[in-house]
Amino acid sequence: MRVGVIGLGRMGANIARRLMRGGHDIVGFDHDAATTAALAAEGATAAQSIDALVATMTPPRVFWVMLPAGQPTENTIQALISLSGSGDIIIDGGNSFYKDDIRRAKLCASNNLHYVDVGTSGGVPGLERGYCMMIGGDESTISHLEPVFETLAPGLGALNRTSGRNGPNNRVESGYIHAGPAGAGHFVKMVHNGIEYGLMQAYAEGFDILKGRASEKLPPEERYPIDVADVAEVWRRGSVISSWLLDICASALIDDPHLEKYSGSVSDSGEGQWTIDAAMEEAVPAHVLSAALFARYRSRRETTYSDKLLSAMRFGFGGHTETPQ
Amino acid sequence: MRVGVIGLGRMGANIARRLMRGGHDIVGFDHDAATTAALAAEGATAAQSIDALVATMTPPRVFWVMLPAGQPTENTIQALISLSGSGDIIIDGGNSFYKDDIRRAKLCASNNLHYVDVGTSGGVPGLERGYCMMIGGDESTISHLEPVFETLAPGLGALNRTSGRNGPNNRVESGYIHAGPAGAGHFVKMVHNGIEYGLMQAYAEGFDILKGRASEKLPPEERYPIDVADVAEVWRRGSVISSWLLDICASALIDDPHLEKYSGSVSDSGEGQWTIDAAMEEAVPAHVLSAALFARYRSRRETTYSDKLLSAMRFGFGGHTETPQ
Amino acid sequence: MRVGVIGLGRMGANIARRLMRGGHDIVGFDHDAATTAALAAEGATAAQSIDALVATMTPPRVFWVMLPAGQPTENTIQALISLSGSGDIIIDGGNSFYKDDIRRAKLCASNNLHYVDVGTSGGVPGLERGYCMMIGGDESTISHLEPVFETLAPGLGALNRTSGRNGPNNRVESGYIHAGPAGAGHFVKMVHNGIEYGLMQAYAEGFDILKGRASEKLPPEERYPIDVADVAEVWRRGSVISSWLLDICASALIDDPHLEKYSGSVSDSGEGQWTIDAAMEEAVPAHVLSAALFARYRSRRETTYSDKLLSAMRFGFGGHTETPQ
Amino acid sequence: MRVGVIGLGRMGANIARRLMRGGHDIVGFDHDAATTAALAAEGATAAQSIDALVATMTPPRVFWVMLPAGQPTENTIQALISLSGSGDIIIDGGNSFYKDDIRRAKLCASNNLHYVDVGTSGGVPGLERGYCMMIGGDESTISHLEPVFETLAPGLGALNRTSGRNGPNNRVESGYIHAGPAGAGHFVKMVHNGIEYGLMQAYAEGFDILKGRASEKLPPEERYPIDVADVAEVWRRGSVISSWLLDICASALIDDPHLEKYSGSVSDSGEGQWTIDAAMEEAVPAHVLSAALFARYRSRRETTYSDKLLSAMRFGFGGHTETPQ
Repeated sequence: MRVGVIGLGRMGANIARRLMRGGHDIVGFDHDAATTAALAAEGATAAQSIDALVATMTPPRVFWVMLPAGQPTENTIQALISLSGSGDIIIDGGNSFYKDDIRRAKLCASNNLHYVDVGTSGGVPGLERGYCMMIGGDESTISHLEPVFETLAPGLGALNRTSGRNGPNNRVESGYIHAGPAGAGHFVKMVHNGIEYGLMQAYAEGFDILKGRASEKLPPEERYPIDVADVAEVWRRGSVISSWLLDICASALIDDPHLEKYSGSVSDSGEGQWTIDAAMEEAVPAHVLSAALFARYRSRRETTYSDKLLSAMRFGFGGHTETPQ
Repeated sequence: MRVGVIGLGRMGANIARRLMRGGHDIVGFDHDAATTAALAAEGATAAQSIDALVATMTPPRVFWVMLPAGQPTENTIQALISLSGSGDIIIDGGNSFYKDDIRRAKLCASNNLHYVDVGTSGGVPGLERGYCMMIGGDESTISHLEPVFETLAPGLGALNRTSGRNGPNNRVESGYIHAGPAGAGHFVKMVHNGIEYGLMQAYAEGFDILKGRASEKLPPEERYPIDVADVAEVWRRGSVISSWLLDICASALIDDPHLEKYSGSVSDSGEGQWTIDAAMEEAVPAHVLSAALFARYRSRRETTYSDKLLSAMRFGFGGHTETPQ
Repeated sequence: MRVGVIGLGRMGANIARRLMRGGHDIVGFDHDAATTAALAAEGATAAQSIDALVATMTPPRVFWVMLPAGQPTENTIQALISLSGSGDIIIDGGNSFYKDDIRRAKLCASNNLHYVDVGTSGGVPGLERGYCMMIGGDESTISHLEPVFETLAPGLGALNRTSGRNGPNNRVESGYIHAGPAGAGHFVKMVHNGIEYGLMQAYAEGFDILKGRASEKLPPEERYPIDVADVAEVWRRGSVISSWLLDICASALIDDPHLEKYSGSVSDSGEGQWTIDAAMEEAVPAHVLSAALFARYRSRRETTYSDKLLSAMRFGFGGHTETPQ
Repeated sequence: MRVGVIGLGRMGANIARRLMRGGHDIVGFDHDAATTAALAAEGATAAQSIDALVATMTPPRVFWVMLPAGQPTENTIQALISLSGSGDIIIDGGNSFYKDDIRRAKLCASNNLHYVDVGTSGGVPGLERGYCMMIGGDESTISHLEPVFETLAPGLGALNRTSGRNGPNNRVESGYIHAGPAGAGHFVKMVHNGIEYGLMQAYAEGFDILKGRASEKLPPEERYPIDVADVAEVWRRGSVISSWLLDICASALIDDPHLEKYSGSVSDSGEGQWTIDAAMEEAVPAHVLSAALFARYRSRRETTYSDKLLSAMRFGFGGHTETPQ
C-alpha cells in the first residue's frame, strides 16, 4: 500500500522503514529537507512539502502523521484536510489527546475523509520488534488499512499463547487492536503511558531503596552494598517482576551502575496528565499513577516553593532552622 | 512543686520558665554549663551534673527530662533510674518512641519508680500560650503531678467551648490529657506530629499552586500573579481552613513572600516515620501522612537514584535524552 | 445597596440574611416559590422569576448568583446577560470553574456589563461568623461593591494581628481579597478547597490510626483504647494542629465517638479535581491534595475493579485465594 | 545432594519436586502427615517429625525451611539449631524479615552451623519455569549449595542476553544471586515484593480507568466500552509495558473480564510493609510503593473511620449530608 508519512523523526522514520521492509511504498516528508533526503536514500519517494506529498499520491490516499502532539500535529492535519479528496484516510500515529481526535474525526467526516487515531508503542526497538498499535475509528477504514497494521505489528512471534485463548489468532494476538470509535486508540495508548509511568516509578523506588542500603547511617550489620546491576539481571530470570522495562534497567545498570551520566531531570509527555484527568472524570482512585507523575515534576526542580514554606512554618512554630542532612 | 528539669534547650528552658512563673521550684541541669547558669539567673537552682541534681532534691523527687529522643534521653533516664529512690517520678517530656516508654516504664516499676511519658506540643510560643500535653502512665502518679500540668497547660483561655460538652470543665479542656498507660502519651503526640506533617504539606502544596499560577507557560489570561501573603491573611478570616499553622504562614509570607531565605531542605523528627509504622501495624491507609513525610525526604536531596533510573529507562526504550525544563 | 440574590439555598439565603442585617435591600428569587416566600417573610422583596427580579431593580443593578456550579449557574448568568442593561453587575458567588469566569467576563464586557467572581468560604456558620471572600474582576467594580463585601466579611474580630503587618488594616484583614482579574477569585477559592481536602484527610487518617490502636491484633501492652473525643479537645488547646476543622471534629466526636451515623461515603465538589488540574498545568507536585481527593472517590465504592484485578493477579501467579481479614 | 525440606505447602512441595527432578535426594516433613505422604509417593523420603528428619540425615546436613514467616519459621529454625550438628546448613527459603536472618545467622554461627536466607520468587509456575533466588550468607556455604540453586533456578533459557553483558555467564544470568551477608537475600526479595505491589497497582489502576470509560456519566462521544481482555493481550505484543504480570492479567481477563469471581479483598504479606520501613530508615521517598500497600489495606475494609470523620466534618461546617453516588 502506498502511504504518505509526514514527520520523519525517530518514530516516523522507523515506521516508514518497517513499512518499506514489508513491501509498502512510502512517500515521505519532513520539514527538515536533509531528513527527508535520508529516507529517500533508503527507498522512499521524497516530497518537499505537504502539498507535494498530496499531489504525488492518488486517491484514496493514506497519510500517516507522526509528529509531536499539539500544534505540529494539529496544523498538519488541518492542512491535509484542506488538500485531501473524498475517501482519503488521515492517520494520526502520534500521541494526541483523544478529545482532539473526536473533534478531528467529525471534521474529517464532514469533508468525506476518514480519520484514524493510532497509539503506537514500542519505542526505538520497534523497528525490529514491531509496534503495538491501539487504533480508534471506523471498522471499514481500519480493515482497509489492515496490511499496514500487519506489517507494523510484531505478529505472533515466540510468545506463549495466553491460556484461555482458543480459536484462530486475531488482531490483538498480532499486536494491534481496534479499540473503539474515534479517540479510543489514543485513549488506550494514554492509559498505557499512565501505567508505564507507574511501573517505571515502582522499579525506580525499589532500586533507590536497594542502593540506599549501603548508607553509613545504618547499623553496620544492616548495611548491604548491593550490586544493583546483578539484582536487575537476576530478577529477569523467573521472578514475578520480570518485564521489558526491567530488561532495560538491567542493560542500563550493567553499563553505569551509579547512573552518573544522568542528572535525573525526567520529562513527561501529556499522557500521564491526561490519564489522571480521565481518572478524575470517572472518579477512579489513581494514587500510584498520579504519584508517578508528580515524582517527575519534582525531579525537574531543585527545590519547590512548597518545601520552602514547610521550612518557614517549622521556623515559625519551633524556631527550627534548616540544617544540612 | 519541686521539679528537676534536665535538658535546658529551647523547649526545656521554656518549660522550666513557665513552671517558675507558676510558682514551682526548679532545679535545672544542662550539659552546657552556660545554659544552666542562664536559667539559674532567672531563679532556678543550678545543678552541675545529674548526680548533683538528684542529690539536691528529696524524695519523692520529680524529674522532667527534656532531651532529644534516642540516646540522649535513654542515657539520662538510665542514669536517673540508677540514682533514684523509691517513689521518685521520671517524666520524659520529649519526643520518645512509645515502645521505648513501655520498656522503660516496666524497668522503673521494677525499681519502685514511676514513669510518665508526656508529649508536649506548642513550640516556642508555648512559653506564653501554654503547652498541650498528652500523658501516659498511672493515674495516681498523674494526679500527683496535676499542679505541674495545670501550670504548663494553656487553661481554658478565650476559646469557645465545644458544642456538645457539658458539665464542669475537665483536664482536656485545660489542655492536657491522660491518654492511657505507659507510652500512650507519646503515641498520641506521635500521631499529632504525623497529622502536623500532613496539614503542613497540604498548605504547602496549595501555596505552590497559587505561586505557580504566574508562570509564563500558561495562557496569558489564565495567569494570575497572586499575592500569597494576602491570601494567607484572608484565609485566616472566616474560612474553613483557618488554623494556627495558617497564622504562621501568614506571618512568614508577609515578611518574605518569595521565601528567599529558605533553601527548602526540610527535616523530620522520628514521629512522622513512627506514625506510618503504626498505621501499617494497624493496616490503616495513610496516603496523606506518608506522602507528607516522603516530600520531606525528597526536599533534602538534589536528585535521587530513582529519578536517574527513570531517565535511564527513558533513554533505553525511547532514546530520550534529558532536556532542561 | 440593593442586591438581587438568585438562589436561596443554604448558602444563598444566609448571604441574603447577613446583607439584610447589614442594612442592604434584598430582592430574592429561588426557583422554589416557598423558599422565596420564606425569605420574603424575613424582609426581602420576593421575585417570582429572574425576569421579575430584573424588572424590580433599577440600573446599575447588582445580582448575586448563588447556585450550584455548572449548568444551573451558567443558565442563570446567560439569562441575566440577556436581560441586563449597561453597567449592571453580575456576581457569581458560587463555586464555578475559573475558566468559565474568564469566558463569561469577556461576554459581559462585550455587553457593557461587569462580571465579578466571588469564592465564598465559611459554610453554614458564616451567617454569624461572616464569610471569607476571594474576589476576581475589575477594581472599579469591586470598589463599588465594597459595602456588600464589608457586610458579608467577618471584619477584624478578636483575632490577633499577624506579626509583620503594620499600618492601617486593609481588606484582607477584614476577610475579603481582590485576588486578580476575572477568575482569580474562584481560582483562589478552588485552591482553598483543595487544601481543605488535604487538611481533612490528614486529620481523618490520624484519628483512624488512634482508633485502630485498640485492635486486638496488636500486642496487649501496645494497645490503647484512646478516647478520640478527648484527644480532639486537648489538641484544640495550645497544640500546633489546632484549627477550625479540629474544632468541628471535637464537636462531632463528643456527640458520636464511633461516628455511627455516617456510612463514610464522601462527596467531592469539582474544586478538588480542578486543583489537581491546575497543579498539573503548572507541573507542581500535589501528592497530598490528590491523595485526599482519591480517598473520597474510594470511599464511595464498595470495591473497585482495581482491587479485583489485584486479587486476580495474586491468584494467577501464586494461587492465592481471597481470605477474609 | 540430600536436602531435608520442612514445610510442603504450595511452595515447599514444588521446591522439593523440582529438586527431585534434578536428581537430588529429598527428605520431606510437613506437620500434615497426608501432605508428607503425598510427596513420599513422588519419591521423597518421608519424615514424621523434625527430629526424625534430622536423624534420617547425616552431617553436614542441608535443611530447606519453607514455612510462613514469623512464628512457624522461627520455631522450626530454633528446633533445628538444637538438633543439628557442627557444619549443618539451615536455609530459610520463606519470606522472613531480614533482621530476623541477621539474628539467626549469629545464633547459628555460635553453634557452628551455617545459616542461609533465600528469597524465592516464581510462584506456582516456578515448578516448571524455575525460581529466581536471592541469597544471603557466606560465600563458602553458598558455593557448597550451588548444585541445589542450579537445579532450582531457571537457567539461561531463551531470554536474550542483556546488552552490555560479556564474558561467561554467571549465577545471576542463571537466576540466582549471592546478594550479600546474612539477611541480604531476604532484603532483596523484600524489595522485589515491594516493587511487585507497585507494578500490580499500576496495572490495576490503569485497567480501572479503561473499564470506567464506559460510564454513563460521561458525554456519549467520550464513552468507550473497551474490551479489557483484548487490551491486555495487545499490550503483551511489543508494548513498553509488557511483563509477566501483564501476561497473567491477560489470562485472568480472557476468563472473566468483569472479574466477578473476586470480591476485591487483597491480602498483603509482610514484605510490602517492611519495604516501606526500609525506605524510611534510608529516607528514600517511596510514594508509589506505599500507595500500593495502602490500597490493599483499604480494599479489605468496607468503610473506614477516616471516611466517616470526613463525612462528619462536612456535616459540621457545611451541613452536607451523605448522599448516594
